[in-house]
Amino acid sequence: MSDSKPTLETLRDTIDQLDRQIQELINKRASCAQQVADVKQAGMEEGEKAVFYRPEREAQVLRRVMERNSGPLNNESMARLFREIMSACLALEEPMSIAYLGPEGTFTQAAAQKHFGHAVRTLPMATIDEVFREVESGSAHYGVVPVENSTEGVVNTTLDSFTHANVTICGEVELRIHHHLLVGANTKENSISRIYSHQQSFAQCRQWLDAHYPAADRIPVSSNSDAAKRMQSEWNAAAIAGEVAAEIYGLKKVASNIEDNPHNSTRFLIVGREHVPSSGQDKTSIIVSMKNKPGALYELLAPFHEAGIMLTRVETRPSRDGTWAYLFFIDFEGHENTESVKNVLKHVEELAVYVKRLGSYPKAVL
Amino acid sequence: MSDSKPTLETLRDTIDQLDRQIQELINKRASCAQQVADVKQAGMEEGEKAVFYRPEREAQVLRRVMERNSGPLNNESMARLFREIMSACLALEEPMSIAYLGPEGTFTQAAAQKHFGHAVRTLPMATIDEVFREVESGSAHYGVVPVENSTEGVVNTTLDSFTHANVTICGEVELRIHHHLLVGANTKENSISRIYSHQQSFAQCRQWLDAHYPAADRIPVSSNSDAAKRMQSEWNAAAIAGEVAAEIYGLKKVASNIEDNPHNSTRFLIVGREHVPSSGQDKTSIIVSMKNKPGALYELLAPFHEAGIMLTRVETRPSRDGTWAYLFFIDFEGHENTESVKNVLKHVEELAVYVKRLGSYPKAVL
Repeated sequence: MSDSKPTLETLRDTIDQLDRQIQELINKRASCAQQVADVKQAGMEEGEKAVFYRPEREAQVLRRVMERNSGPLNNESMARLFREIMSACLALEEPMSIAYLGPEGTFTQAAAQKHFGHAVRTLPMATIDEVFREVESGSAHYGVVPVENSTEGVVNTTLDSFTHANVTICGEVELRIHHHLLVGANTKENSISRIYSHQQSFAQCRQWLDAHYPAADRIPVSSNSDAAKRMQSEWNAAAIAGEVAAEIYGLKKVASNIEDNPHNSTRFLIVGREHVPSSGQDKTSIIVSMKNKPGALYELLAPFHEAGIMLTRVETRPSRDGTWAYLFFIDFEGHENTESVKNVLKHVEELAVYVKRLGSYPKAVL
Repeated sequence: MSDSKPTLETLRDTIDQLDRQIQELINKRASCAQQVADVKQAGMEEGEKAVFYRPEREAQVLRRVMERNSGPLNNESMARLFREIMSACLALEEPMSIAYLGPEGTFTQAAAQKHFGHAVRTLPMATIDEVFREVESGSAHYGVVPVENSTEGVVNTTLDSFTHANVTICGEVELRIHHHLLVGANTKENSISRIYSHQQSFAQCRQWLDAHYPAADRIPVSSNSDAAKRMQSEWNAAAIAGEVAAEIYGLKKVASNIEDNPHNSTRFLIVGREHVPSSGQDKTSIIVSMKNKPGALYELLAPFHEAGIMLTRVETRPSRDGTWAYLFFIDFEGHENTESVKNVLKHVEELAVYVKRLGSYPKAVL
């Protein structure tokens, strides 16, 4: 009997045993989390409230989960489960409320739940400024706002809001976005003479289109879902759009993941009121105002280059105060508590009219 | 040292150890689930596809999780975590697609994810008929539709769609709905002279209002969120609305959970193509058409009464075929595979013009 295949029944018994153990351990974990909260609260002054949510610690836990993961569940699924376990444990202490740029059902809500799990209350706000205000006033523990959107470029409102808001960046979230070439039920792959999509998606799939459909007309429309919708009544045409649009309009996939950059994604920032200690793999964001003179940006970036600090993003925005200055939004690797970053920031402060530190935070884990 | 309080560091080490064990066990569980799938597929004819998702089995697992749960995580949080674990394990075999009545961000989507976890693809549909069609055609594995909505009553479209659709009910989901008495920032509790809400919500909170605000005018408006919105500009007034509306419009809670029935909830049905075996705690739904004569319903319900079978819902709808008949939608406790239910259904079939069995399915666990 020893090398015979297990039966359905014995496998289910094994699963039930495993579930029992998993449950016991999760409850033990929750008890430990409660004790952590007690220890933290005991260290507070009277009337002061301890901070229970630690972004850097969560990032470390998730990184370890992914590093040691041996499958069969993939790293992403496993990390998602641990996110939910941590979310449930944390909710025992402090049910968190998270303001986000609404309405409900948008990618920003998905980002909030990807980052905080589902044991939180998410509050949709009508504008980015309202999200910031909710956080500043303490009505929400954290806020989530889009900052780079692969179909709309940089979200300028978010950058502008950062210049006058009094919040700290505590984390970042990335949602991966894939593009597919889709056709209606009656269209044949070799008959495609027109391709519809949003301008940005064409840009993101240019190489692939040049290689596979060099002769097809590229017709820009207002959104990818608009492009997908047209396929219901168009022959000899294809649309570039995502999974959801393909499903809503019942389209066939001619080709999947046709974006030139496989890391095509939308990025969101988590804002809060506290500064986040180093998680070991961090980013820092600053706003720098420079006098409007030739070579200003080059001069500004030199100290980073010399210190060997990697820039992950630089955005330029005209200052709203007048034409005499430019604002640069700079993200770079490293935590503001490290010596090298401290030195660079000191150097930048000497060069610039004005520097605003937006915070150091763990790099997106998932 | 033995009875000294644990430090933050030792607690975190313990949590890390627990996480390591939890992760190992979850991966073992996923392996077992894969083996279950292999055994099932091996028992199939060539070309036939095994059914991996078993609603009755999931319901049993979740009931056991809740029965044996000792805290500190509450039963609901723990069951939600296991729902996600099962969802992730199942996705290894068969990434399920779930059609639901959209748009995204509605309660129906929340119900779909409460039932299937987050490792599924949810497809928003514009109408209930489209949800049914997606399931019938095999484009979606399951569908989720609202059937009783505590703010809008019974969803008649869903009932009508069931009369002509060829789908089987595989499960039910309940989302609990709470009402609160809310006021704007400048309104004092003892100055409330007007209360705004949707008519249905007034009905649901009547006893509480009679006891606490007998003299206040009750002004019906189109929706609870409309009532909440008015509080931003009204003094001496309150609104009855839910959590989300309170948060969106920044209102103060004068009183929480004021609904007379503490089990106030919205109910959704899961539809699929397969019949679900008994989970031990099941419900059955049928549609019965009776001739339009006095006492028809009474006559119809007698066999249930005699067999001691509990009816959980009876809805009456005029038949769309003409005025000569009525349609009754009946939900009752028990599975159609048990002798007592078989006998009752036989009896009902003799009495009725027509009986359509919609399916037996596990009672909502959470």
